[in-house]
Amino acid sequence: MSATSSSKNRNEELISALMDCGAVRFGDFTLASGKKSKYYIDIKKASSDPATLGLIARQASDIIKDLDVDRAGGVALGGVPLATAVSLETGLPLFLIRKATKEYGTGGRFVGDLEKGDRIILLEDVTTSGGSVMEAISAIREADGVVDMVITVVDREDGAKERLSAVDVILLPLVEAHELLEVEDDS
Amino acid sequence: MSATSSSKNRNEELISALMDCGAVRFGDFTLASGKKSKYYIDIKKASSDPATLGLIARQASDIIKDLDVDRAGGVALGGVPLATAVSLETGLPLFLIRKATKEYGTGGRFVGDLEKGDRIILLEDVTTSGGSVMEAISAIREADGVVDMVITVVDREDGAKERLSAVDVILLPLVEAHELLEVEDDS
Repeated sequence: MSATSSSKNRNEELISALMDCGAVRFGDFTLASGKKSKYYIDIKKASSDPATLGLIARQASDIIKDLDVDRAGGVALGGVPLATAVSLETGLPLFLIRKATKEYGTGGRFVGDLEKGDRIILLEDVTTSGGSVMEAISAIREADGVVDMVITVVDREDGAKERLSAVDVILLPLVEAHELLEVEDDS
Repeated sequence: MSATSSSKNRNEELISALMDCGAVRFGDFTLASGKKSKYYIDIKKASSDPATLGLIARQASDIIKDLDVDRAGGVALGGVPLATAVSLETGLPLFLIRKATKEYGTGGRFVGDLEKGDRIILLEDVTTSGGSVMEAISAIREADGVVDMVITVVDREDGAKERLSAVDVILLPLVEAHELLEVEDDS
């Protein structure tokens, strides 16, 4: 593999870590949707591996340090280890959003304090069309919190960026799908 | 408050941190059960506060370093930030257990790999009668994982230790309810 010889501005370090821990695999895959894919993402393997999770937290924190943010937010369950690692790395309080169910009222959906106007940076493990993070943003905004940025580890580039943009949220991916495909092409 | 002048072998550092972040408050409280209590625990405030979470992770890791353990386990949702922080501190892979619902099969309840005989140390934020952690232990054992120890941040001393002992699991609390009451008496 000659990925490191590429002149592209890819996140080689994280892509290598994702491959090493098994979170990204290359081959010929058929996704649940029936679509063919040259790569397969099992992103939970990244959160389970503390070396990879630590690297993700450091890269996310590098972005966050230049932003005006009050809390590190994670959507249950996948975003929780990421947001926890970022909270520990940055010192930002942790804020968790449970999945929507009839069981919780608005208040009960959140773990952590939310004051009017608090700025939450959301952490997601993988974004495809952005459905679950869109739902979490609505819940936070209903509770008078502010979300205008989401950091995702891998964006599959299947609509999330555009959908979030339409509600004035910027998606900041650490790795994008086309970068994975370039690595595969270089190999 | 003269708590630090006590000769008792209490976890003063953690108790102070729990008080400072609002996770433990003293006063006259009536619990949801109707029981009166001299203290109130809002343990989620400990996980939301990265300084306190970091302290918990270091204290838990001090215990774990002498144990033969393969994975740091957390029961959703409260145990997940704790287990994540311990995973980052110890380098042990993270293992998460979702709450039991009909939605998941046995495999779908876990996030992270579990091989036959893998030893999981479970992290809990607060134990009362131990119900939720007992259920998680059953699920892990059904999947051929091994659990014989649970670290809890605060044990309310309301039956968890005895109930876990009956299934051959040792409960290791960082803080026990009677220690909180001693601090209150000293104040």
